Amino acid sequence: MIIDIIRKKACNYELTKEELETIFNGYLTGFVKDYQMSAFLMAICINDMSDSEIFALTDIFIKSGDTLDLSSIPSIKVDKHSTGGVGDKTTLIVAPLVASCNVPVIKMSGRGLGYTGGTIDKLESIPSFRVDLSEEEIIKQAQEIGLVITSQTKNLAPLDKKIYALRDVTATTNSIPLIASSIMSKKIAAGTDKIIIDIKVGDGALIKTNNEAERLSSLLIKIGTYYQKEVRTIISPMDQPLGYNIGNKLEVIEALNVLDNKEAGPLLDLCLDLASNMIAMGLNISLEKARELALTNLKNGKAKEKFYELVKYQGGDLTKLTIDAKQYNIKANKSGVLKNIDALLIAKLSQNLGAGRKNKEDKIDYNAGIVIKKDIGSKVEEGDILAYLYTNLDIKDFDINGIFEIS
Amino acid sequence: MIIDIIRKKACNYELTKEELETIFNGYLTGFVKDYQMSAFLMAICINDMSDSEIFALTDIFIKSGDTLDLSSIPSIKVDKHSTGGVGDKTTLIVAPLVASCNVPVIKMSGRGLGYTGGTIDKLESIPSFRVDLSEEEIIKQAQEIGLVITSQTKNLAPLDKKIYALRDVTATTNSIPLIASSIMSKKIAAGTDKIIIDIKVGDGALIKTNNEAERLSSLLIKIGTYYQKEVRTIISPMDQPLGYNIGNKLEVIEALNVLDNKEAGPLLDLCLDLASNMIAMGLNISLEKARELALTNLKNGKAKEKFYELVKYQGGDLTKLTIDAKQYNIKANKSGVLKNIDALLIAKLSQNLGAGRKNKEDKIDYNAGIVIKKDIGSKVEEGDILAYLYTNLDIKDFDINGIFEIS
Repeated sequence: MIIDIIRKKACNYELTKEELETIFNGYLTGFVKDYQMSAFLMAICINDMSDSEIFALTDIFIKSGDTLDLSSIPSIKVDKHSTGGVGDKTTLIVAPLVASCNVPVIKMSGRGLGYTGGTIDKLESIPSFRVDLSEEEIIKQAQEIGLVITSQTKNLAPLDKKIYALRDVTATTNSIPLIASSIMSKKIAAGTDKIIIDIKVGDGALIKTNNEAERLSSLLIKIGTYYQKEVRTIISPMDQPLGYNIGNKLEVIEALNVLDNKEAGPLLDLCLDLASNMIAMGLNISLEKARELALTNLKNGKAKEKFYELVKYQGGDLTKLTIDAKQYNIKANKSGVLKNIDALLIAKLSQNLGAGRKNKEDKIDYNAGIVIKKDIGSKVEEGDILAYLYTNLDIKDFDINGIFEIS
Repeated sequence: MIIDIIRKKACNYELTKEELETIFNGYLTGFVKDYQMSAFLMAICINDMSDSEIFALTDIFIKSGDTLDLSSIPSIKVDKHSTGGVGDKTTLIVAPLVASCNVPVIKMSGRGLGYTGGTIDKLESIPSFRVDLSEEEIIKQAQEIGLVITSQTKNLAPLDKKIYALRDVTATTNSIPLIASSIMSKKIAAGTDKIIIDIKVGDGALIKTNNEAERLSSLLIKIGTYYQKEVRTIISPMDQPLGYNIGNKLEVIEALNVLDNKEAGPLLDLCLDLASNMIAMGLNISLEKARELALTNLKNGKAKEKFYELVKYQGGDLTKLTIDAKQYNIKANKSGVLKNIDALLIAKLSQNLGAGRKNKEDKIDYNAGIVIKKDIGSKVEEGDILAYLYTNLDIKDFDINGIFEIS
């Protein structure tokens, strides 16, 4: 029976919802084995899925766990998701900015298993910051300040979690239908009304080509429509790190700089795009009007105030946010123009400095990370400082080969 | 590293021999997990393999275990393989027929895990017949009577065995490159010089279409050429069972009837085709000349004599070959013409009667099986006996639905 379902997908026939339920729910109970699911996932990776298969899978993921009921918060709730990028601290900037415009943001985030920490890791790097709010605390805080960023309270889409762990070790991560149903099941189970999704595309990202990004975008919107949730997407490049700082405390510090109007550039631009879309969806206004609101609340400091309010409500202490690590200087070995900074290699370096986990059990060093000191396209002289590295590990030689391209 | 190799095949790039060695030898040692290998095998199933990948895989399979050295037997040794069919007792007829023409046949056979028993199960149904010959016994018997049929003495292609068990439960059995390298690695490790391979095609077989059968045929011949072994193939239909008897003792009895010139038809025709090719290869003569020799030794009883010699040498007692089971009659429920007998369904029925294993640990009832009493195309009257069933199990209702098509 299970064999027949796997074979049907291997032969590129469309599966019924019942067949998908049989194999996926069977996997959750343990009746279907890892080696059967991984063969099936590979067949999906290569042969793709139809829209109705994708809708069915999303539904199976959602029903495998709890769903959050946010109906006691009357306004339209808007959530944000990113497919993951190096130096991506947009949530730390966008969430308070949107909340300051009276659009409630209740965000469940995760820890990172990739090269860098997740949003929860970054917030936890603020001394005493609590990320384990109860459902009552979430509702109360959302009603009082309109902004919550916390880890998952309930068991949201546990089947997706189990499948994701298997995909990670079987080269089946880069399937667009699997990515789409994974993202949407978690977001829908989290009880939000509208969603903005930042699709990262490039060498440093899961999604390598614009075609794949377009396909994912259209799928996410379709799944949203199926569940009567408005979904908007932004496709943004991930060939170079986003912003200047990589590492948990360092990224909080950079987010504060942006909220303090001390930094412009690609990070700010992307944050404004994301925030404008969220505000437009939340208040049912035009994107232009929403952008004006966002810019106003950034300039007048209300976004930054909202961030401080968030930290205070969740028990954090920003006065103690200092980098406690040795600093090393990375210098240019020749003169020329800084042509590129490789996102993937810089992420690996940051992990090696202690800023990311290699295994689920690893402890992150919140102080570790990288601060980039030169903009792409700028002139550098031999001996100029390209970046500072921060680490508490005893590293003799830093592997910076291929990270900075000077020509 | 392993992930990269899986991804490369998933993206349909050709793998190097080193990459194939890394993942397949890693699987044998346990470094590569079942769930990784099954994802990889699925990628092969869907994306296929190039000729050089197939040669490399065959080589890896061979080198994973022992090889047999048959050089002390001076003549050209010819082996036979069948991809598996219902009621296929050709080895029991062809091997003695070929050996009686002075072409030595040293055949390593297996037990069946499908619906019916394997050649070794069939021979073991002859009381006292030994199938566990030592290498010395094999060589001695081959030199004395030119015919040996035994189970594997050495550890031939153990990696193929491990992969085959995984393919069986992950819907990855019907990959032509995997089938080809599996067959050829075992045959080459078994030390033979020339090989005839009977490719069964049809609803009752692993290979469903003529295109697949042609592809497999050309691959088997190519792999043979690569190892300087002459390979011939015969593509034969497997929509209906081969011959009249299905079940272990029953098939030995039918083989004896054919060797005794008491049965003609498709079974005899296929045996003559296989035997002629083996004799032609073994004696380096034309197919016509070989066919004449085969027919002569069938008619004059020398083939049957050789079978008795084989049984005597391996300790069996044909006088005790009687069916010890209850007999049930299956009657036609209407008059008309017998249009078809479904091979797959009759195989499942025979397994349910006790003639085949469902799990590796199951014991076979050698007496159980089916004797078909009507030819396809013949007229039947309502109430005519279509078949006898033999079983020692307490079965109330036999599921014969769909087996006999009368119109």
